[in-house]
Amino acid sequence: MGKYKLRCITCGKIYESSEVEYTCPKCGNRMGTLEVIYDYENIKIYREEFSKYENIWQFEKILPIEKGSYRTPLHVGGTPLYNTPSLAEELGIKELVIKYDGTNPTASYKDRASAIAITKAYEKGYDTIYCASTGNAASSLAGLSAPTKLKTFIFLPASAPIAKISQLFIYGAKVIPIDGSYDEAFDISMKIGEEKGWYCRNSAINPYLLEGKKTGALEIAIQNNWNIPDYLLVSVGDGTVISSFYKGFYDLYQLGLIDRIPKIIGVQAKGASAVKRVFDKGEPFLPDDIETNTIADSISVGKPRDVIKACKYVKASGGYFISVSDEEILSAIYELSLKTGIFGEPAGATSYAGLKKIAKKLGKEAKVAIVITGNGLKDIKAIEKFVKLRKIKPDLKAVREVIEEYEN
Amino acid sequence: MGKYKLRCITCGKIYESSEVEYTCPKCGNRMGTLEVIYDYENIKIYREEFSKYENIWQFEKILPIEKGSYRTPLHVGGTPLYNTPSLAEELGIKELVIKYDGTNPTASYKDRASAIAITKAYEKGYDTIYCASTGNAASSLAGLSAPTKLKTFIFLPASAPIAKISQLFIYGAKVIPIDGSYDEAFDISMKIGEEKGWYCRNSAINPYLLEGKKTGALEIAIQNNWNIPDYLLVSVGDGTVISSFYKGFYDLYQLGLIDRIPKIIGVQAKGASAVKRVFDKGEPFLPDDIETNTIADSISVGKPRDVIKACKYVKASGGYFISVSDEEILSAIYELSLKTGIFGEPAGATSYAGLKKIAKKLGKEAKVAIVITGNGLKDIKAIEKFVKLRKIKPDLKAVREVIEEYEN
Repeated sequence: MGKYKLRCITCGKIYESSEVEYTCPKCGNRMGTLEVIYDYENIKIYREEFSKYENIWQFEKILPIEKGSYRTPLHVGGTPLYNTPSLAEELGIKELVIKYDGTNPTASYKDRASAIAITKAYEKGYDTIYCASTGNAASSLAGLSAPTKLKTFIFLPASAPIAKISQLFIYGAKVIPIDGSYDEAFDISMKIGEEKGWYCRNSAINPYLLEGKKTGALEIAIQNNWNIPDYLLVSVGDGTVISSFYKGFYDLYQLGLIDRIPKIIGVQAKGASAVKRVFDKGEPFLPDDIETNTIADSISVGKPRDVIKACKYVKASGGYFISVSDEEILSAIYELSLKTGIFGEPAGATSYAGLKKIAKKLGKEAKVAIVITGNGLKDIKAIEKFVKLRKIKPDLKAVREVIEEYEN
Repeated sequence: MGKYKLRCITCGKIYESSEVEYTCPKCGNRMGTLEVIYDYENIKIYREEFSKYENIWQFEKILPIEKGSYRTPLHVGGTPLYNTPSLAEELGIKELVIKYDGTNPTASYKDRASAIAITKAYEKGYDTIYCASTGNAASSLAGLSAPTKLKTFIFLPASAPIAKISQLFIYGAKVIPIDGSYDEAFDISMKIGEEKGWYCRNSAINPYLLEGKKTGALEIAIQNNWNIPDYLLVSVGDGTVISSFYKGFYDLYQLGLIDRIPKIIGVQAKGASAVKRVFDKGEPFLPDDIETNTIADSISVGKPRDVIKACKYVKASGGYFISVSDEEILSAIYELSLKTGIFGEPAGATSYAGLKKIAKKLGKEAKVAIVITGNGLKDIKAIEKFVKLRKIKPDLKAVREVIEEYEN
């Protein structure tokens, strides 16, 4: 076989990568998302060849890209992994490591997927790329395509946080702010993209995105010195990021580099827990869409596009889904910043909210990883209730009074 | 001698680090800022011991800190250096490398200084630390002290960008938002800090901050494979960051690791070019304060605290100061994002605005480095003129019309 093939998540049919662009023609866009499978036995790969903070291109051997094709020069990946022993102790677990992806070029996890999408667009000879997004995939695609010759169209809900929208304009993307939900923006983008023949960077539809995202799992293994956590918690919207964590560990396992895969636990916002609902109903997993209502805009998804894969992978790992309220998410942002200096956006801190909820159940011996998928600076409005700005006159007496208040 | 001593920038008197806390008692806070000087001949250090993306603690041998004292676990430094050949060509210079510090833990260059300040506060046994700041030093100190036991007081102009202010509250700092300028906040903070006996993380006053900041220069040397640029452009407010770049290269030169120091060119906002004015008047350099007016809040400084050092160091390097208008700064943010995918805040992109202005003068053979000191996400309001948000109805016809506009 070549370097890799594509396999339908539902019917299992295997395709050459030249045979199919996005999803399984037989099973369709929703049921027929594709997996990238490698010729694991013939890949020579060693733990020693990786370094902790290199960008994602160090994983080229297990990425679905051609030798010598375009690589973004921006430093995607190689983000920090923080070991936080005192927080672990407080939570009553053995170890807690926190993967923080807020330091990617456009400040979210999505850069890992956009990097691959742009490489594939070049390989396939497209001149235009597009995506629908709650905000982060959008700013990511806009930022990474900025220095390229690709034209970039972005479909997103006009209600996305202003920081994410501002990124699109400053990177020069062609922006279509839809007066509606992410789910509506997604459906419209698919129709337009097909009409126009543009390259699609849409979650789940494009099978290569998940391969970019899986590099977060690879980095956790490397940065934690191949000490694999028992549990990994990650927030869930469309279901691609969580699937990618399973896939990253699965690849390492298939390659003989690790001997087990963590139990993957998906954390959804209570007001947008469509994937959890499908998972809890049990097999066969069938999409079942909902209306959403949550402050965690990045995971405010009612019609999750990667629900089948997410449910199958989480089940295979021995994990499950939980949900947390917006209140719990807000507290999680604050507490995490306060205790670790790591400032996550709402969807970013959702995994920590989930951990707080189930730490006791995981138990004293549990080694846990959580993923903070986006920088808190991307959604300042979400935390405005914590910001108590009152102006103080520039004189010593007024200032001394305020300090006294703080000290008492 | 011990690992290092302190030397007054004006009278040249040398102190043991135990003799003096902040500035030269003879020359005072403004004229008597101190330099940290090492016993260069007895430091064994080799190019090979450094790696590209490690945090600043890899430079411990040439940092003024004790073995085994507190180190922030947050990943400070190891930020990317981007080589941008096509932009260099467009500007008519030979090479352009861009140091991007927007990926530090709190998204600005200031984390490098705060990391050292916190270590020193622990070493010296303080329980409270404070600073005055235009915004970035504030959010940096708040973020890096969050996971420590230190109490943190922050004095800043209440007009600072909301993202920076929000960071303070989410990190749990005790915030004193002054209804006035940075310069007023600074003077008040100094009086209160002295009254209270808190540890001072104020630019120029604390001699160790610059040592943290110099790590940016060390990383440029390492990441550019010891190919030292001819010129380095950096934005200037108080004058500490620019001084730190000279000092970093100076240390490497003294240690025999490089054979020349770049010419350092300071770029100020036209509405806040106090350091340039002092430099242009010539020696002896004497502080000469002004009123400020610029959108680049981080460098909106009328009473620069490190003006003496900045002028002396820039002169020693063979460099000089230039200034750019707010219009030029805004265009620079946009152009840099568009052409490289690097999104800087106003003060961050000021160095690029400066380069655009003098690239021709630097000439075809010039190898240039610029420093982008902060993430654009820290000041979204500054770029609002580029954000043209109009909501589009979620129907295909409306969307097709907008796409047609974009395509024509």
